[in-house]
Amino acid sequence: MEKKEISRAVINRLPRYYRFLKELEKEGVERISSLELSRALDVTASQIRQDFNNFGGFGQQGYGYNVQHLKEEIGKIIGLDQCYNMIIVGIGNLGKALAKYPGFANNGYSTIGLFDSDPAKIGTVINDIAVRGIDELGSFAADNEVDIAVICVPRTEALKTASLLVEKGIKAFMNFTQADLEHELPDGIFVQNVYLIDTVMLLSYDLNNSKK
Amino acid sequence: MEKKEISRAVINRLPRYYRFLKELEKEGVERISSLELSRALDVTASQIRQDFNNFGGFGQQGYGYNVQHLKEEIGKIIGLDQCYNMIIVGIGNLGKALAKYPGFANNGYSTIGLFDSDPAKIGTVINDIAVRGIDELGSFAADNEVDIAVICVPRTEALKTASLLVEKGIKAFMNFTQADLEHELPDGIFVQNVYLIDTVMLLSYDLNNSKK
Repeated sequence: MEKKEISRAVINRLPRYYRFLKELEKEGVERISSLELSRALDVTASQIRQDFNNFGGFGQQGYGYNVQHLKEEIGKIIGLDQCYNMIIVGIGNLGKALAKYPGFANNGYSTIGLFDSDPAKIGTVINDIAVRGIDELGSFAADNEVDIAVICVPRTEALKTASLLVEKGIKAFMNFTQADLEHELPDGIFVQNVYLIDTVMLLSYDLNNSKK
Repeated sequence: MEKKEISRAVINRLPRYYRFLKELEKEGVERISSLELSRALDVTASQIRQDFNNFGGFGQQGYGYNVQHLKEEIGKIIGLDQCYNMIIVGIGNLGKALAKYPGFANNGYSTIGLFDSDPAKIGTVINDIAVRGIDELGSFAADNEVDIAVICVPRTEALKTASLLVEKGIKAFMNFTQADLEHELPDGIFVQNVYLIDTVMLLSYDLNNSKK
Protein backbone atom coordinates (compact mmCIF):
# COMPACT_ATOMS: atom_id res chain seq x y z
CA MET A 1 0.00 0.00 0.00
CA GLU A 2 1.28 3.43 -0.92
CA LYS A 3 2.10 5.31 2.26
CA LYS A 4 1.52 9.00 2.72
CA GLU A 5 1.80 10.86 5.98
CA ILE A 6 -1.56 10.55 7.70
CA SER A 7 -2.35 13.11 10.37
CA ARG A 8 -2.71 11.96 13.95
CA ALA A 9 -6.18 13.49 14.12
CA VAL A 10 -7.35 11.14 11.36
CA ILE A 11 -5.73 8.12 13.01
CA ASN A 12 -7.30 9.03 16.34
CA ARG A 13 -10.75 8.88 14.75
CA LEU A 14 -10.28 5.36 13.34
CA PRO A 15 -11.19 3.42 16.52
CA ARG A 16 -14.43 5.35 16.78
CA TYR A 17 -15.35 4.58 13.17
CA TYR A 18 -14.46 0.97 13.77
CA ARG A 19 -16.53 0.64 16.95
CA PHE A 20 -19.53 2.28 15.31
CA LEU A 21 -19.34 0.04 12.24
CA LYS A 22 -19.04 -3.02 14.47
CA GLU A 23 -22.26 -1.98 16.21
CA LEU A 24 -24.00 -1.47 12.87
CA GLU A 25 -22.83 -4.88 11.68
CA LYS A 26 -24.20 -6.47 14.86
CA GLU A 27 -27.53 -4.77 14.23
CA GLY A 28 -27.57 -6.25 10.73
CA VAL A 29 -27.11 -2.96 8.84
CA GLU A 30 -25.54 -3.73 5.46
CA ARG A 31 -24.95 -0.35 3.85
CA ILE A 32 -24.46 3.18 5.14
CA SER A 33 -23.92 6.48 3.36
CA SER A 34 -21.33 9.00 4.45
CA LEU A 35 -24.24 11.32 5.29
CA GLU A 36 -25.72 8.76 7.68
CA LEU A 37 -22.30 8.08 9.18
CA SER A 38 -21.85 11.79 9.54
CA ARG A 39 -25.15 12.25 11.39
CA ALA A 40 -24.56 9.33 13.71
CA LEU A 41 -21.00 10.35 14.56
CA ASP A 42 -21.52 14.11 14.52
CA VAL A 43 -18.67 14.61 12.05
CA THR A 44 -19.29 16.30 8.69
CA ALA A 45 -19.76 13.99 5.71
CA SER A 46 -16.93 15.79 3.98
CA GLN A 47 -14.64 15.10 6.95
CA ILE A 48 -15.54 11.42 6.78
CA ARG A 49 -14.82 11.27 3.05
CA GLN A 50 -11.53 13.12 3.56
CA ASP A 51 -10.57 10.76 6.38
CA PHE A 52 -11.35 7.72 4.26
CA ASN A 53 -9.51 9.13 1.25
CA ASN A 54 -6.31 8.88 3.26
CA PHE A 55 -6.70 5.14 2.90
CA GLY A 56 -7.93 4.98 -0.66
CA GLY A 57 -11.60 5.81 -0.02
CA PHE A 58 -12.95 2.28 0.62
CA GLY A 59 -14.89 2.22 -2.65
CA GLN A 60 -18.18 3.89 -1.92
CA GLN A 61 -20.45 2.68 -4.74
CA GLY A 62 -23.96 3.81 -5.46
CA TYR A 63 -25.65 4.02 -2.08
CA GLY A 64 -22.93 4.34 0.49
CA TYR A 65 -20.45 1.91 1.98
CA ASN A 66 -20.76 -1.79 2.64
CA VAL A 67 -20.69 -1.87 6.45
CA GLN A 68 -18.90 -5.18 6.85
CA HIS A 69 -16.28 -4.36 4.23
CA LEU A 70 -15.67 -0.89 5.65
CA LYS A 71 -15.35 -2.29 9.18
CA GLU A 72 -12.87 -4.89 8.02
CA GLU A 73 -10.80 -2.42 6.03
CA ILE A 74 -10.60 0.05 8.92
CA GLY A 75 -9.87 -2.87 11.24
CA LYS A 76 -6.96 -3.90 9.02
CA ILE A 77 -5.57 -0.37 9.05
CA ILE A 78 -5.73 -0.31 12.85
CA GLY A 79 -4.15 -3.76 12.87
CA LEU A 80 -7.14 -5.69 14.17
CA ASP A 81 -6.60 -8.52 11.71
CA GLN A 82 -4.06 -9.79 14.26
CA CYS A 83 -4.15 -10.50 17.98
CA TYR A 84 -1.98 -8.81 20.57
CA ASN A 85 -0.48 -10.03 23.80
CA MET A 86 -0.64 -7.70 26.77
CA ILE A 87 0.86 -7.72 30.22
CA ILE A 88 -0.28 -5.62 33.15
CA VAL A 89 2.33 -4.39 35.58
CA GLY A 90 1.06 -3.21 38.96
CA ILE A 91 -1.97 -5.10 40.24
CA GLY A 92 -3.43 -2.42 42.49
CA ASN A 93 -7.10 -1.52 42.24
CA LEU A 94 -6.81 -0.21 38.70
CA GLY A 95 -4.49 -2.97 37.46
CA LYS A 96 -6.85 -5.57 38.87
CA ALA A 97 -9.86 -3.92 37.22
CA LEU A 98 -8.01 -3.87 33.89
CA ALA A 99 -7.04 -7.55 34.31
CA LYS A 100 -10.77 -8.27 34.54
CA TYR A 101 -11.84 -5.83 31.82
CA PRO A 102 -13.62 -7.86 29.12
CA GLY A 103 -13.19 -5.18 26.45
CA PHE A 104 -9.58 -6.14 25.83
CA ALA A 105 -10.14 -9.84 25.12
CA ASN A 106 -13.28 -9.04 23.11
CA ASN A 107 -11.21 -6.99 20.73
CA GLY A 108 -8.27 -9.36 20.31
CA TYR A 109 -6.05 -8.25 23.18
CA SER A 110 -5.04 -11.22 25.36
CA THR A 111 -3.63 -10.58 28.78
CA ILE A 112 -0.84 -13.14 29.23
CA GLY A 113 0.92 -11.84 32.31
CA LEU A 114 0.26 -9.92 35.54
CA PHE A 115 3.04 -8.57 37.74
CA ASP A 116 3.26 -6.96 41.16
CA SER A 117 5.88 -6.46 43.82
CA ASP A 118 3.58 -7.16 46.77
CA PRO A 119 4.22 -10.70 48.14
CA ALA A 120 0.58 -10.82 49.26
CA LYS A 121 -0.55 -10.48 45.65
CA ILE A 122 1.98 -12.79 44.03
CA GLY A 123 0.38 -16.13 43.28
CA THR A 124 -3.19 -14.83 43.49
CA VAL A 125 -5.17 -15.66 40.38
CA ILE A 126 -7.18 -13.12 38.35
CA ASN A 127 -9.10 -14.34 35.33
CA ASP A 128 -7.07 -17.57 35.29
CA ILE A 129 -3.74 -15.75 35.38
CA ALA A 130 -1.49 -15.97 38.42
CA VAL A 131 0.18 -12.74 39.48
CA ARG A 132 3.97 -13.02 39.19
CA GLY A 133 6.61 -11.16 41.14
CA ILE A 134 8.00 -8.04 39.53
CA ASP A 135 11.45 -9.71 39.57
CA GLU A 136 10.16 -12.08 36.88
CA LEU A 137 9.13 -9.22 34.62
CA GLY A 138 12.33 -8.98 32.58
CA SER A 139 12.67 -12.70 31.90
CA PHE A 140 8.97 -13.03 31.09
CA ALA A 141 9.15 -10.17 28.62
CA ALA A 142 12.26 -11.69 27.03
CA ASP A 143 10.78 -15.20 26.78
CA ASN A 144 7.26 -14.32 25.61
CA GLU A 145 5.91 -12.33 22.75
CA VAL A 146 4.52 -9.29 24.51
CA ASP A 147 3.11 -6.55 22.29
CA ILE A 148 1.70 -4.09 24.79
CA ALA A 149 2.51 -3.39 28.44
CA VAL A 150 -0.08 -1.72 30.66
CA ILE A 151 1.68 0.32 33.34
CA CYS A 152 -0.22 0.66 36.61
CA VAL A 153 2.70 0.82 39.05
CA PRO A 154 3.24 3.82 41.33
CA ARG A 155 4.35 6.89 39.39
CA THR A 156 7.86 6.77 40.81
CA GLU A 157 8.34 3.22 39.46
CA ALA A 158 6.87 3.87 36.04
CA LEU A 159 9.95 4.93 34.09
CA LYS A 160 12.15 2.19 35.56
CA THR A 161 9.52 -0.44 34.76
CA ALA A 162 8.94 0.80 31.22
CA SER A 163 12.66 1.15 30.52
CA LEU A 164 13.27 -2.47 31.51
CA LEU A 165 10.49 -3.56 29.16
CA VAL A 166 11.86 -1.43 26.33
CA GLU A 167 15.21 -3.23 26.81
CA LYS A 168 13.39 -6.54 26.42
CA GLY A 169 11.86 -5.39 23.16
CA ILE A 170 8.41 -4.08 24.14
CA LYS A 171 7.42 -1.14 21.99
CA ALA A 172 3.92 -0.15 23.12
CA PHE A 173 2.74 1.11 26.48
CA MET A 174 -0.60 2.02 27.94
CA ASN A 175 0.33 4.32 30.80
CA PHE A 176 -2.08 4.81 33.71
CA THR A 177 0.45 6.58 35.93
CA GLN A 178 0.99 10.31 35.91
CA ALA A 179 4.54 9.84 34.68
CA ASP A 180 5.46 11.46 31.41
CA LEU A 181 6.77 8.25 29.82
CA GLU A 182 6.24 9.46 26.28
CA HIS A 183 9.04 11.99 26.57
CA GLU A 184 11.37 9.89 28.68
CA LEU A 185 11.46 6.70 26.63
CA PRO A 186 13.54 6.40 23.43
CA ASP A 187 12.19 7.25 19.99
CA GLY A 188 10.20 4.54 18.30
CA ILE A 189 8.37 3.58 21.49
CA PHE A 190 4.63 4.19 21.52
CA VAL A 191 2.86 5.46 24.60
CA GLN A 192 -0.83 6.08 25.12
CA ASN A 193 -1.57 7.84 28.38
CA VAL A 194 -4.75 7.49 30.35
CA TYR A 195 -4.41 10.48 32.65
CA LEU A 196 -7.51 10.18 34.81
CA ILE A 197 -6.69 13.33 36.72
CA ASP A 198 -6.32 15.41 33.57
CA THR A 199 -9.66 14.13 32.36
CA VAL A 200 -11.49 15.20 35.47
CA MET A 201 -9.63 18.54 35.51
CA LEU A 202 -10.91 19.29 32.03
CA LEU A 203 -14.44 18.82 33.35
CA SER A 204 -13.67 21.32 36.11
CA TYR A 205 -12.49 23.76 33.49
CA ASP A 206 -15.69 23.39 31.53
CA LEU A 207 -17.92 23.66 34.59
CA ASN A 208 -16.05 26.71 35.68
CA ASN A 209 -16.14 28.49 32.40
CA SER A 210 -19.78 27.74 31.73
CA LYS A 211 -20.81 29.42 34.99
CA LYS A 212 -19.28 32.76 34.11
CA MET B 1 -11.25 38.63 33.20
CA GLU B 2 -11.56 39.47 29.55
CA LYS B 3 -12.68 36.37 27.70
CA LYS B 4 -11.45 35.44 24.29
CA GLU B 5 -12.06 32.12 22.64
CA ILE B 6 -9.32 29.78 23.81
CA SER B 7 -8.65 26.75 21.64
CA ARG B 8 -9.36 23.32 23.02
CA ALA B 9 -5.77 22.27 22.32
CA VAL B 10 -4.54 24.95 24.74
CA ILE B 11 -7.08 23.98 27.39
CA ASN B 12 -6.16 20.32 27.03
CA ARG B 13 -2.55 21.15 27.90
CA LEU B 14 -3.41 22.98 31.14
CA PRO B 15 -3.67 19.90 33.39
CA ARG B 16 -0.24 18.77 32.25
CA TYR B 17 1.30 22.18 33.03
CA TYR B 18 -0.45 22.15 36.38
CA ARG B 19 0.74 18.67 37.33
CA PHE B 20 4.30 19.46 36.34
CA LEU B 21 4.34 22.71 38.32
CA LYS B 22 2.90 20.91 41.32
CA GLU B 23 5.80 18.45 41.15
CA LEU B 24 8.32 21.28 40.86
CA GLU B 25 6.76 23.01 43.86
CA LYS B 26 7.01 19.78 45.87
CA GLU B 27 10.68 19.55 44.95
CA GLY B 28 11.20 23.09 46.22
CA VAL B 29 11.87 24.69 42.83
CA GLU B 30 10.98 28.39 43.02
CA ARG B 31 11.47 29.72 39.52
CA ILE B 32 11.45 28.21 36.05
CA SER B 33 12.06 29.73 32.63
CA SER B 34 9.89 28.96 29.63
CA LEU B 35 12.95 27.29 28.08
CA GLU B 36 13.28 24.93 31.04
CA LEU B 37 9.53 24.27 31.01
CA SER B 38 9.81 23.61 27.32
CA ARG B 39 12.62 21.08 27.71
CA ALA B 40 10.91 19.24 30.54
CA LEU B 41 7.55 19.07 28.78
CA ASP B 42 8.85 18.60 25.24
CA VAL B 43 6.80 21.54 23.98
CA THR B 44 8.50 24.52 22.30
CA ALA B 45 9.14 27.55 24.50
CA SER B 46 7.22 29.66 22.00
CA GLN B 47 4.24 27.31 22.31
CA ILE B 48 4.35 27.66 26.09
CA ARG B 49 4.46 31.45 25.88
CA GLN B 50 1.62 31.46 23.35
CA ASP B 51 -0.43 29.15 25.57
CA PHE B 52 0.16 31.36 28.61
CA ASN B 53 -0.61 34.53 26.65
CA ASN B 54 -4.17 33.28 26.28
CA PHE B 55 -4.49 33.92 29.99
CA GLY B 56 -2.55 37.15 30.23
CA GLY B 57 0.96 35.67 30.29
CA PHE B 58 1.37 35.13 34.05
CA GLY B 59 3.93 37.91 34.38
CA GLN B 60 7.25 36.33 33.54
CA GLN B 61 9.79 38.72 35.06
CA GLY B 62 13.53 38.56 34.79
CA TYR B 63 14.43 34.92 35.13
CA GLY B 64 11.32 32.93 34.33
CA TYR B 65 8.12 32.26 36.21
CA ASN B 66 7.48 31.94 39.91
CA VAL B 67 6.52 28.25 40.17
CA GLN B 68 4.02 28.57 43.01
CA HIS B 69 2.31 31.59 41.47
CA LEU B 70 2.14 29.97 38.04
CA LYS B 71 0.75 26.75 39.52
CA GLU B 72 -1.90 28.67 41.41
CA GLU B 73 -2.90 30.78 38.43
CA ILE B 74 -3.22 27.76 36.14
CA GLY B 75 -5.06 25.95 38.93
CA LYS B 76 -7.54 28.83 39.14
CA ILE B 77 -8.12 28.73 35.40
CA ILE B 78 -8.82 25.00 35.57
CA GLY B 79 -11.04 25.66 38.58
CA LEU B 80 -8.91 23.94 41.19
CA ASP B 81 -9.47 26.73 43.69
CA GLN B 82 -12.71 24.93 44.47
CA CYS B 83 -13.61 21.37 45.39
CA TYR B 84 -15.90 19.13 43.39
CA ASN B 85 -18.33 16.42 44.40
CA MET B 86 -18.36 13.27 42.33
CA ILE B 87 -20.57 10.23 42.18
CA ILE B 88 -19.70 6.93 40.54
CA VAL B 89 -22.49 4.99 38.88
CA GLY B 90 -21.81 1.31 38.21
CA ILE B 91 -19.61 -0.37 40.79
CA GLY B 92 -18.16 -3.15 38.64
CA ASN B 93 -14.41 -3.76 38.59
CA LEU B 94 -13.62 -0.40 37.06
CA GLY B 95 -16.12 1.57 39.17
CA LYS B 96 -14.75 -0.02 42.29
CA ALA B 97 -11.16 0.79 41.30
CA LEU B 98 -12.16 4.41 40.66
CA ALA B 99 -13.94 4.57 44.02
CA LYS B 100 -10.60 3.64 45.59
CA TYR B 101 -8.45 5.83 43.33
CA PRO B 102 -6.58 8.29 45.58
CA GLY B 103 -5.81 10.70 42.72
CA PHE B 104 -9.31 12.14 42.81
CA ALA B 105 -9.40 13.09 46.50
CA ASN B 106 -5.78 14.32 46.33
CA ASN B 107 -6.79 16.86 43.73
CA GLY B 108 -9.98 18.11 45.34
CA TYR B 109 -12.52 15.67 43.91
CA SER B 110 -14.60 14.07 46.67
CA THR B 111 -16.57 10.98 45.91
CA ILE B 112 -19.87 11.39 47.77
CA GLY B 113 -21.97 8.61 46.30
CA LEU B 114 -21.66 5.16 44.73
CA PHE B 115 -24.53 3.46 42.89
CA ASP B 116 -25.17 0.03 41.46
CA SER B 117 -28.17 -2.06 40.51
CA ASP B 118 -26.79 -5.34 41.86
CA PRO B 119 -28.45 -6.20 45.22
CA ALA B 120 -25.26 -8.04 46.24
CA LYS B 121 -23.30 -4.80 45.98
CA ILE B 122 -25.82 -2.46 47.56
CA GLY B 123 -24.84 -1.74 51.15
CA THR B 124 -21.22 -2.82 50.71
CA VAL B 125 -18.80 -0.12 51.80
CA ILE B 126 -15.91 1.17 49.68
CA ASN B 127 -13.64 3.85 51.15
CA ASP B 128 -16.24 4.62 53.84
CA ILE B 129 -19.05 5.06 51.32
CA ALA B 130 -21.92 2.60 51.16
CA VAL B 131 -23.07 1.59 47.69
CA ARG B 132 -26.67 2.70 47.09
CA GLY B 133 -29.23 1.17 44.78
CA ILE B 134 -29.53 2.70 41.34
CA ASP B 135 -33.16 3.54 42.19
CA GLU B 136 -31.85 6.14 44.65
CA LEU B 137 -29.74 7.83 42.00
CA GLY B 138 -32.27 10.46 40.92
CA SER B 139 -33.21 11.57 44.42
CA PHE B 140 -29.58 11.61 45.56
CA ALA B 141 -28.58 13.77 42.60
CA ALA B 142 -31.49 16.11 43.28
CA ASP B 143 -30.78 16.40 47.03
CA ASN B 144 -26.99 16.73 46.91
CA GLU B 145 -24.65 19.02 45.10
CA VAL B 146 -23.08 16.70 42.56
CA ASP B 147 -20.67 18.29 40.11
CA ILE B 148 -19.38 15.30 38.18
CA ALA B 149 -20.82 11.87 37.50
CA VAL B 150 -18.53 9.00 36.57
CA ILE B 151 -20.37 6.57 34.34
CA CYS B 152 -19.23 2.94 34.60
CA VAL B 153 -22.52 1.18 33.92
CA PRO B 154 -22.92 -1.24 31.00
CA ARG B 155 -22.89 0.56 27.66
CA THR B 156 -26.58 -0.06 27.05
CA GLU B 157 -27.47 1.70 30.32
CA ALA B 158 -25.16 4.66 29.85
CA LEU B 159 -27.44 7.09 28.02
CA LYS B 160 -30.43 6.38 30.26
CA THR B 161 -28.31 6.91 33.38
CA ALA B 162 -26.68 10.09 32.13
CA SER B 163 -29.99 11.52 30.91
CA LEU B 164 -31.57 11.04 34.33
CA LEU B 165 -28.61 12.84 35.90
CA VAL B 166 -28.83 15.68 33.38
CA GLU B 167 -32.48 16.09 34.37
CA LYS B 168 -31.36 16.42 37.99
CA GLY B 169 -28.92 19.16 37.06
CA ILE B 170 -25.60 17.35 36.61
CA LYS B 171 -23.56 18.93 33.86
CA ALA B 172 -20.27 17.01 33.76
CA PHE B 173 -19.65 13.36 32.98
CA MET B 174 -16.62 11.15 32.92
CA ASN B 175 -17.66 8.34 30.62
CA PHE B 176 -15.94 4.95 30.84
CA THR B 177 -18.47 3.15 28.67
CA GLN B 178 -18.19 2.91 24.92
CA ALA B 179 -21.40 4.89 24.51
CA ASP B 180 -21.19 8.11 22.54
CA LEU B 181 -22.75 10.25 25.29
CA GLU B 182 -21.18 13.45 24.05
CA HIS B 183 -23.37 13.51 20.97
CA GLU B 184 -26.52 12.17 22.60
CA LEU B 185 -26.82 14.49 25.58
CA PRO B 186 -28.12 18.06 25.23
CA ASP B 187 -25.88 21.04 24.53
CA GLY B 188 -24.18 22.55 27.56
CA ILE B 189 -23.36 19.14 29.05
CA PHE B 190 -19.67 18.28 29.28
CA VAL B 191 -18.42 14.79 28.63
CA GLN B 192 -14.90 13.43 28.88
CA ASN B 193 -14.57 9.94 27.51
CA VAL B 194 -12.06 7.39 28.68
CA TYR B 195 -12.29 4.94 25.80
CA LEU B 196 -9.89 2.22 26.92
CA ILE B 197 -10.45 0.20 23.76
CA ASP B 198 -9.65 3.14 21.49
CA THR B 199 -6.46 3.74 23.44
CA VAL B 200 -5.21 0.23 22.97
CA MET B 201 -6.28 0.23 19.30
CA LEU B 202 -4.11 3.28 18.68
CA LEU B 203 -1.16 1.30 20.02
CA SER B 204 -1.99 -1.47 17.54
CA TYR B 205 -2.02 1.07 14.76
CA ASP B 206 1.41 2.34 15.75
CA LEU B 207 2.89 -1.14 16.16
CA ASN B 208 1.50 -2.11 12.80
CA ASN B 209 2.70 0.88 10.93
CA SER B 210 6.15 0.85 12.47
CA LYS B 211 6.75 -2.73 11.30
CA LYS B 212 6.24 -1.89 7.64
